[in-house]
Amino acid sequence: MNQEKIVVNRSTANPLLRPQDLRPSMPGMKIECLLNPGMFEFEGRTGMLVRVAERPPQVDGKVSFPIFNAGGLMEILNFDADDEYLDLSDARLVTYNGVVYLSTISHLRLLWSDDGENFTEPDPSFSIFGSGALETFGVEDCRVSKVGGTYYLTYTAVSENGVGVGMISTSDWKTLHRHGMIIPPHNKDCALFEEKINGLYYCLHRPSGIDLGGNYIWIASSPDLIHWGDHRCILRTRAGMWDSARVGGGCAPIKTDRGWLAIYHGATAQHRYCLGGLLLDLNDPAKVLARSGTPIMEPQEPYEVQGFFGEVIFTNGHIIKGDELTVYYGAADEVICSAKFSINAILESLVPV
Amino acid sequence: MNQEKIVVNRSTANPLLRPQDLRPSMPGMKIECLLNPGMFEFEGRTGMLVRVAERPPQVDGKVSFPIFNAGGLMEILNFDADDEYLDLSDARLVTYNGVVYLSTISHLRLLWSDDGENFTEPDPSFSIFGSGALETFGVEDCRVSKVGGTYYLTYTAVSENGVGVGMISTSDWKTLHRHGMIIPPHNKDCALFEEKINGLYYCLHRPSGIDLGGNYIWIASSPDLIHWGDHRCILRTRAGMWDSARVGGGCAPIKTDRGWLAIYHGATAQHRYCLGGLLLDLNDPAKVLARSGTPIMEPQEPYEVQGFFGEVIFTNGHIIKGDELTVYYGAADEVICSAKFSINAILESLVPV
Repeated sequence: MNQEKIVVNRSTANPLLRPQDLRPSMPGMKIECLLNPGMFEFEGRTGMLVRVAERPPQVDGKVSFPIFNAGGLMEILNFDADDEYLDLSDARLVTYNGVVYLSTISHLRLLWSDDGENFTEPDPSFSIFGSGALETFGVEDCRVSKVGGTYYLTYTAVSENGVGVGMISTSDWKTLHRHGMIIPPHNKDCALFEEKINGLYYCLHRPSGIDLGGNYIWIASSPDLIHWGDHRCILRTRAGMWDSARVGGGCAPIKTDRGWLAIYHGATAQHRYCLGGLLLDLNDPAKVLARSGTPIMEPQEPYEVQGFFGEVIFTNGHIIKGDELTVYYGAADEVICSAKFSINAILESLVPV
Repeated sequence: MNQEKIVVNRSTANPLLRPQDLRPSMPGMKIECLLNPGMFEFEGRTGMLVRVAERPPQVDGKVSFPIFNAGGLMEILNFDADDEYLDLSDARLVTYNGVVYLSTISHLRLLWSDDGENFTEPDPSFSIFGSGALETFGVEDCRVSKVGGTYYLTYTAVSENGVGVGMISTSDWKTLHRHGMIIPPHNKDCALFEEKINGLYYCLHRPSGIDLGGNYIWIASSPDLIHWGDHRCILRTRAGMWDSARVGGGCAPIKTDRGWLAIYHGATAQHRYCLGGLLLDLNDPAKVLARSGTPIMEPQEPYEVQGFFGEVIFTNGHIIKGDELTVYYGAADEVICSAKFSINAILESLVPV
């Protein structure tokens, strides 16, 4: 199955972080998965904002999962595992009589590292939980973009009202400023470009269609990072290929001489998630110049193939040192890993469109 | 079935417009339906921007419908009516082997009236067709809001990329300015408030959820009408009621002493569409003050109950004269009608929430 055409240097320390490496956010909860970290550099250290997915310890014959109730308090719902109305066919969801819940609830946990491989929590720990009516099922998959001196966190806000993109900013990783939902449902995978282009900010995002449309990458522009318009579809799925069912952007596109390089994920209908590259015009980022034919990376290591939700590598965070790109990724929706690439090698591998 | 609790004065001239009253946009096409007009006043006359849905005349044993091909030219697709891969269970869609098309393609046609009941086309006629990659399946259901001296047209932009909200502005109904897609898929039913509130513009819009969420009314704010943020869910469907499956805003909310009165549609899973009222706080339009318990209007006349898609009344345009609200609506997805209400009577009928 190894189709990786370019050199991928997975960390020998993989997985860098496993669920048992962190403490649950509260008594009575168990961390089932660590997923899809946002990455950044701050004051000489590497920061990680990892998604922590928790639920109560599961008891034989029962299915239990947390929700925030109308009062904003955590509540545990329990069902009999053999209940005929229960559908557990997707490990990420609990469907009961047609009503969909998440099997876990996620928050974002801040970790620091001096070497990019060993991450530890600050004391006291620093977590971002869902807040308000649009985040009652939690917050997920945070991208961290640095614009000027400010870090902008774009993440998936999940509630019974739908799934959209929330944004928080911080300059000091102490005080958070909440900017509400910047892209409405159904939307995920929002990554901000880290500078203005011709006077406007840009982001990639991923709406999902109903009947018409699909799970495609779109671009939008903004005068202020908070209000977004001029939405355009720039990248669609490709029938029969590794990105046939869904595509979605990683974190902030990388500025290169040849254009903006975005790392994106592609998945099949069987939920096999791989990574590819996408090159956008420097002056008009809505213009796609080139794209990966085959994945630049695909699940092949045991920790990528097997886990809470196997055959998944998903990135929304990386660190750049010259030509070296360190991609941090969630593997099998369970553990956190990293792999190094040459940016030039990725650029060379792309196929003009 | 008549549950209308307040006086609804349907025009005795209903239907005001039928498909045969207008000429097709080009030879070889037939107008199947007139739907859901946007309404406005300009230079002493009443303007209507009606949705015209066309397809080739249908021949026995065949199903034919138009699409714009990749080159932007109209193309007719034909299938055998008994093809086993063909699904025509919803008159609005043609599904072939899982791929969804629209059974008709819509444009917007401008009409004028001196009395609000007799509408005629200008000479030469004035139509707005879909333009660009996001409107290849047409444009639908246009709301017209007047902000300052400019008319803003928010409409459903339909393509194989998805369904979102496009915006066009004009000051003279001659020159159009296109502002691109202002709200990304999956979204419809976008109505702009006609003045700023506390320094920001507002709109109602209607995303649709996948797995989580539903067909709920949301509100967003903007500094410039083009870029939108701070999306919030303000109105959800109600199980077992007339608005159990979907709700969506009509046109610009009406400013009253008691708050912003929005007319909205509610539908059941059986696609029965009724109208209701919604009252929003004058200074904080994200705050819902009251809502219709029973519909203010529901399909009951023959032209509302039977047609291209029966049991539907749908409004996205009205004209206000003091307390008199004239709602223009599409009936049975086929003809255009109007009905008059007392604004105060609607306000009195709403149930505080």
